[in-house]
Amino acid sequence: MVNNKYAIALVGYGGMGHFHAQHLIPNVEDIFLYGIYDIDPAKLEEAKENGYKAFQSFDELCADPAVDIVLVATPNDYHKEYVIGALRAGKAAISEKPVTLCSADLQEMIDAAHETGKLFTVHQNRRWDKDFRIARRIFDEGLLGEVHRIESRVHGSRGIPGDWRGQKQHGGGMVLDWGVHILDQMLQMVPGKVKSVYAHMEHVTNYEVDDGFEIVLHFESGLTALLEVGTSNFINLPRWYILGENGSAVINGFKADGRMVNITNWDNRDAVPVVTAAGLTKTMAPRTKETIHESPLPEAEPDIREYYQNIVAVLRGEAEQIVRHDELMRVMKVMEAAFEADRTGQIVYLNE
Amino acid sequence: MVNNKYAIALVGYGGMGHFHAQHLIPNVEDIFLYGIYDIDPAKLEEAKENGYKAFQSFDELCADPAVDIVLVATPNDYHKEYVIGALRAGKAAISEKPVTLCSADLQEMIDAAHETGKLFTVHQNRRWDKDFRIARRIFDEGLLGEVHRIESRVHGSRGIPGDWRGQKQHGGGMVLDWGVHILDQMLQMVPGKVKSVYAHMEHVTNYEVDDGFEIVLHFESGLTALLEVGTSNFINLPRWYILGENGSAVINGFKADGRMVNITNWDNRDAVPVVTAAGLTKTMAPRTKETIHESPLPEAEPDIREYYQNIVAVLRGEAEQIVRHDELMRVMKVMEAAFEADRTGQIVYLNE
Repeated sequence: MVNNKYAIALVGYGGMGHFHAQHLIPNVEDIFLYGIYDIDPAKLEEAKENGYKAFQSFDELCADPAVDIVLVATPNDYHKEYVIGALRAGKAAISEKPVTLCSADLQEMIDAAHETGKLFTVHQNRRWDKDFRIARRIFDEGLLGEVHRIESRVHGSRGIPGDWRGQKQHGGGMVLDWGVHILDQMLQMVPGKVKSVYAHMEHVTNYEVDDGFEIVLHFESGLTALLEVGTSNFINLPRWYILGENGSAVINGFKADGRMVNITNWDNRDAVPVVTAAGLTKTMAPRTKETIHESPLPEAEPDIREYYQNIVAVLRGEAEQIVRHDELMRVMKVMEAAFEADRTGQIVYLNE
Repeated sequence: MVNNKYAIALVGYGGMGHFHAQHLIPNVEDIFLYGIYDIDPAKLEEAKENGYKAFQSFDELCADPAVDIVLVATPNDYHKEYVIGALRAGKAAISEKPVTLCSADLQEMIDAAHETGKLFTVHQNRRWDKDFRIARRIFDEGLLGEVHRIESRVHGSRGIPGDWRGQKQHGGGMVLDWGVHILDQMLQMVPGKVKSVYAHMEHVTNYEVDDGFEIVLHFESGLTALLEVGTSNFINLPRWYILGENGSAVINGFKADGRMVNITNWDNRDAVPVVTAAGLTKTMAPRTKETIHESPLPEAEPDIREYYQNIVAVLRGEAEQIVRHDELMRVMKVMEAAFEADRTGQIVYLNE
């Protein structure tokens, strides 16, 4: 600690490292970014220029008694060694996501946390996304009646980034990059066990790792969750599409605009058939206004500062960590099931 | 024949029977609706009032030498006996869709056509839907480059109709009702064999038959096709969503409006990251205008009269039938695979 504030040492001064330094850490009292280690001398130079202590090695970082928390924002395949190293040095450890590339590695990290008694958690920051919080309110508050299907999509059109994110050895690919977020969100939202996993991965611009995927989770409750990421999608489908017995909701993009449409009279099924040139349909005729009600989405104003505030509270012994080990392991096992489902071309049954 | 026109006898004067009588048959020269048989006396009375011959029995219909073509528009489980009866009476037979409830029954119908040498075909009218024809042009003309995923959805919000369409014994359910159309369209559009079928069926308002489904076809070419029908969808997703290596297309609803967005510069991957409260993303940042080009959908003005014009040409020995037996059987086998996939919770591999 320095001046009664928890001192964070950052490992990896890349995109997410900068985001923590600029947008996340400064907004929370009781913590500050103390120093940075990066294997790139230029990044260390930049760290110094920005007023942080520049560690010449990870050992030097671990040996610094002022460091309370080690934040690991390296490529994914380095998370494990830095987290375990930090824990063994007596530090709390926060890893960027995906925490690691397989459940066996994650278990080693969890074991190290138990052995050392130190905090180990992961920056699952998208639990604080506005669109997710709105979706969760719709679900939790039963605004559509019982929900039978949730579709969660993230569509981009830049292919997969040209850096380590496209390389398998570094844990690239969209399942590990975005899948870990939207799976974590879905498992946070939907109660009960996952029964089975269907998955298909795309390789439009990258053959080494998936640059998109469709994953379907079948919950024991009967609810079906579709999780989809695309990086060659020049027109986007909605971020969320939620179907309940009494209504549907759409939430668009990061701005999280959208709407809900509820049925007010299920018994009114009479329809004027839609006549098209080639055929007619009564089933698919649109409903008349008097049997449905459109309403705006519920409000949600999540506060991402809660993430680091929780870290502080945990270190003070005042709270349990928000992002728990069992949650991390569950997401990892579902991701492994998805990889297996894609590889084998079979549906994978879980034993949660 | 009557006055040198082919005489059609309709079996089943329900919704689709009326549609043929009012919108399809009168628009084609060389055919006319001559008579009607229905098990409901009130329908027969209506037929008489509308100027058609009212047959008191199917045998009477078959015995009438003026009848050239028997059009079967009954509930689905009656198609087989009427079609085979008509063929054996020396008539040409057209069945409404789905042609029957299983491939074994369809084979009996095909065998009867071969034995009698008479025309047997099915009214797969949605091959003439505008939205489908536009989708097919996009695909055939390579307007998006190589296509890797096609999503075909039909969303309604009335549940499943309360008549025989909700009953299993009569061939109810959305796979047989709408699935047969959108599967037929997809197999018309995408060349090559189907390797495997994933399927999940919904039962939101009906437990006896599916009132919605998601089917995924994996083609040997690598293309993935999603086919989805919902009847509890109060907000609709687009009718078609097509992803190619160089662009995406959306086609909405029966009006078939929509757009295409093509990439003009794949090499430009630089993005201004999107910073949201909780995180940032470069992969999912929207593209800047100078690297994409938006264009209207190609035109398509299909003419449903071609269906009956083809029937006339076949009867005259001047053309092959458009809706072929092998196509009908293929759709039926994919539907059976989908039912099996849903029932077993496994992906079903075909041997096309």
